[in-house]
Amino acid sequence: MQLFKNNTNKIKVMALGGLNEIGKNMTVIEYKDEIIVIDAGLSFPEEDMLGVDIVIPDITYLMKNKDKIKGIFITHGHEDHIGALPYILKKINVPVYGAKLSIGLIQVKLKEHKLNNVKLNVVTPRQVIKLNNFEVEFIKNNHSIPDACSIAVHTDQGIIYHTGDFKIDLTPIDGDVMDIHRICELSNEGVLLMLADSTNVGRSGYTMSEKTVGAGLDDLFRKANNSRIIVATFSSNIHRLQQIINMAEKFNRKVAISGRSMINVVGVSRDLGYLNIEDKTLIDLNDISKYEDSELVIITTGTQGEPMSALARMASAEHKKVEIKAGDLVIISAHPIPGNEKLISRVINLLFEKGAEVVYNDIADIHVSGHASQEELKLIHRLAKPKFFMPAHGEYRMLKRHAELAEELGMPSQNIFVMQTGDVLELDANSAKVASRIPTGNVLVDGLGVGDVGNIVLRDRKHLSEDGLMIVVVTISKEDGTVLAGPDIISRGFVYVRESEDLMDGAKGIIKQVLKDCEEKNIKEWAYLKNNIKENLKEYLYQRTKRNPMILPIIMEV
Amino acid sequence: MQLFKNNTNKIKVMALGGLNEIGKNMTVIEYKDEIIVIDAGLSFPEEDMLGVDIVIPDITYLMKNKDKIKGIFITHGHEDHIGALPYILKKINVPVYGAKLSIGLIQVKLKEHKLNNVKLNVVTPRQVIKLNNFEVEFIKNNHSIPDACSIAVHTDQGIIYHTGDFKIDLTPIDGDVMDIHRICELSNEGVLLMLADSTNVGRSGYTMSEKTVGAGLDDLFRKANNSRIIVATFSSNIHRLQQIINMAEKFNRKVAISGRSMINVVGVSRDLGYLNIEDKTLIDLNDISKYEDSELVIITTGTQGEPMSALARMASAEHKKVEIKAGDLVIISAHPIPGNEKLISRVINLLFEKGAEVVYNDIADIHVSGHASQEELKLIHRLAKPKFFMPAHGEYRMLKRHAELAEELGMPSQNIFVMQTGDVLELDANSAKVASRIPTGNVLVDGLGVGDVGNIVLRDRKHLSEDGLMIVVVTISKEDGTVLAGPDIISRGFVYVRESEDLMDGAKGIIKQVLKDCEEKNIKEWAYLKNNIKENLKEYLYQRTKRNPMILPIIMEV
Repeated sequence: MQLFKNNTNKIKVMALGGLNEIGKNMTVIEYKDEIIVIDAGLSFPEEDMLGVDIVIPDITYLMKNKDKIKGIFITHGHEDHIGALPYILKKINVPVYGAKLSIGLIQVKLKEHKLNNVKLNVVTPRQVIKLNNFEVEFIKNNHSIPDACSIAVHTDQGIIYHTGDFKIDLTPIDGDVMDIHRICELSNEGVLLMLADSTNVGRSGYTMSEKTVGAGLDDLFRKANNSRIIVATFSSNIHRLQQIINMAEKFNRKVAISGRSMINVVGVSRDLGYLNIEDKTLIDLNDISKYEDSELVIITTGTQGEPMSALARMASAEHKKVEIKAGDLVIISAHPIPGNEKLISRVINLLFEKGAEVVYNDIADIHVSGHASQEELKLIHRLAKPKFFMPAHGEYRMLKRHAELAEELGMPSQNIFVMQTGDVLELDANSAKVASRIPTGNVLVDGLGVGDVGNIVLRDRKHLSEDGLMIVVVTISKEDGTVLAGPDIISRGFVYVRESEDLMDGAKGIIKQVLKDCEEKNIKEWAYLKNNIKENLKEYLYQRTKRNPMILPIIMEV
Repeated sequence: MQLFKNNTNKIKVMALGGLNEIGKNMTVIEYKDEIIVIDAGLSFPEEDMLGVDIVIPDITYLMKNKDKIKGIFITHGHEDHIGALPYILKKINVPVYGAKLSIGLIQVKLKEHKLNNVKLNVVTPRQVIKLNNFEVEFIKNNHSIPDACSIAVHTDQGIIYHTGDFKIDLTPIDGDVMDIHRICELSNEGVLLMLADSTNVGRSGYTMSEKTVGAGLDDLFRKANNSRIIVATFSSNIHRLQQIINMAEKFNRKVAISGRSMINVVGVSRDLGYLNIEDKTLIDLNDISKYEDSELVIITTGTQGEPMSALARMASAEHKKVEIKAGDLVIISAHPIPGNEKLISRVINLLFEKGAEVVYNDIADIHVSGHASQEELKLIHRLAKPKFFMPAHGEYRMLKRHAELAEELGMPSQNIFVMQTGDVLELDANSAKVASRIPTGNVLVDGLGVGDVGNIVLRDRKHLSEDGLMIVVVTISKEDGTVLAGPDIISRGFVYVRESEDLMDGAKGIIKQVLKDCEEKNIKEWAYLKNNIKENLKEYLYQRTKRNPMILPIIMEV
């Protein structure tokens, strides 16, 4: 019977996140009785996810197939690739594999979540992890964080090559170019399926080398003269940090670090040897007053204008240790993530108002992307020569554009699969098709609650946020239905109550009338009564204010 | 005594909005016993203004000086220059002056607000309105709406020249270049103060002519073949509409209009002769099914991804008359306003998912700005040669950059005034200084309420939006303080109640304990009791969920 078991030679490839969205990257590869997971990322809440902290993938499918899972293989240490790990490892404790820095960053994260029974495995590029039915190989990438890797899964049906996030930097800061030689070798062995980063498929040409940022920084540091320099950048962009530190040392400035994640990352990457900074260069943020402005560089978080970030707190004079003053030079070495433009703009204006000079990417070349542009994507397609292709890591329009790019390079359209999260691609050496779907979606994390905030809660939050609420309380006699106390009205987020006494009196009048009618008709169904109060009040309030507060009638029986 | 009266020859210039912000433009010029107002715009709510519809300037100063006001002079018909008019005219009924199209658009607006006793005056460029102490002259501008004007105020101390929103388009669609000759003449007479548009001061070079968009559109229409074409653009950009209509007529396509504001503007501008469209070209949106796709152009609102706009409704299959289908060509002829990037992105992805081809500004040259870039700004400074300069219309960083630009052109820094909304610039023929401040600020409009939503209401809405609320109701005996009914708990927007019974039971336990303690101690101060419930519950809920819902304890006495 075993022989006739379905799909024995079919490999299944499915995404639990990262398709039709930016973030929450998680890919599952299943072959025979083994499953591997590539990455376990988070995404940040959409505007309509009120009060939600982060979003992680729905792992129902993994929960059901717990025993098959051999490990989670991490391409690199960005939040959209490792941020969901603590939540997922709480539910399925499987080994995690990743390069040294990735594992270092994961350790910090697991410690915060008090998870200390996870088996973490440090791998090096070209290292191969052998499973029963296939092998998993890590291959060195270039990206905006060191130790980024792509992953090749070797099966008897062919190789599945997942680029992870990458660019091809021919002059990288650490000197190690992406391992394109290995990709050539893989293509000779035969790449069955490629999954590739689609983030920058809309950009023509090549993405600039990280090294080009150095020239922009050098120029700014040279002209800074006696100004204090404050540089905001992504904490995870350690090559960028290295370049900033190099500039500081070149121009005889001390470096102080601000922001929790920046302090964490600098610590880990220094410990692991990814960041070279002389002991005499690094000073404590508490000691900056001991130095002249011309001797200082402060490296900080807050490139996205996040209201609680160190830079935003400096800008609004709420930072305990750093006060922005006239003459300060603030360099924002990052690009706005779509949706954050207004927050960033607000911070920049506040910095200017305090008299600081602010340099951001519109003004000088002080940031480059970590993702491949069109020409690099074409190169990776040419190098890997996959039989089948699945655009990954991007919104729908990017996936579609990437599919078009593959077609332009000569791939038959029926070999390209623009998939959705949850689609299952089944393939073997000769064929591939989207065969089924598995349950997927967003799991919202709010405080300690994972998944306990859903549509109803969000709908209520939205309603409350727009027009506030009005609570009506009445105590009624169990025996004869007469009103013993109330109606009392309490409102929040609706109108200034003090200036709206007239409106509130009117509302009370409406409620009293409803109560009277019900008493006269001897109606004791509280649901009916509540509904009547709600409807009448709603109409009255809308007519008077054109607003629809949430109305909550409460009846107490005594 | 009259002779010694303060400031008799001082002109006061102050902004009630438009400085350190984009939107809400309103400038006041006061001389002797006369006041004129230039523009009365609205702005759109910031992210933290939950539930607010629009924001208008605080006109306390105008209310106090009602009798001095001679009129509101409108530079052009964009919302950020006319949107607050209905609200302001309800409080101060003064004449309004503006060019034909501006007045036409204002009429539509006043009609919606049922304001029919306002004196509207249509002026033509170079027309001068004489007051007792000064004269107000309209001068033709180029901008992204026809009939845009700058305003020159002629006083015996010199001319105050307010550019309004402008670009210098040397090949405008209607053939009328900005009246730079008149600005030359003004400078010969002596421009005392210039206020100038700072929106695009960060952009080098010249802003491209509106005409260049025509070439981009022509290219897209030519390649569209049998596709239906849907073009989204700003309804007020009538020159853009004209170019789209010209293309439709050139390629033998009918034009249907979608979106309330688009229908309004097309109606008004056609009536007033600003839009040429053949009767046979324009069809009703209800009739599109009678034509082939290749015979159709649909012009729609929704360039900013606004969820209720026509384009967003088409994208999410909620539009009653237009269903997006594979092969449709959607052209978004506009630029994202900062803050709207994510909304637009969502709409574009939905359109792609429906199989439409979407062309937006990243991909093709189908939009140009309506505001002057650096070289045009330099030109206007050179032409007008003002003695004093006040950067207008922009965020702080833009105003500051514009001040630097003026300095680069040789203006002494002490003659440049980077002002805030509410600052009063006092000047005469020889001197100028910021002398005082008047009360200003944001007035929030929510439904029918103007100004009844303030910080407390917004703070409550924010609190409710993040963690929801929990209401606790208890009925207590007036006589002996025993609990007669409850405690009942009602929560909204906090957790899924069904999955949180345990949490709710715990909460009830906490409340009962507090009630018992108070009963035992014979405490009948309800404020104390409420506070105790609140504090204990807050701590319990935070420990269990890391959330802080709003807690509202209600005590009914019977």
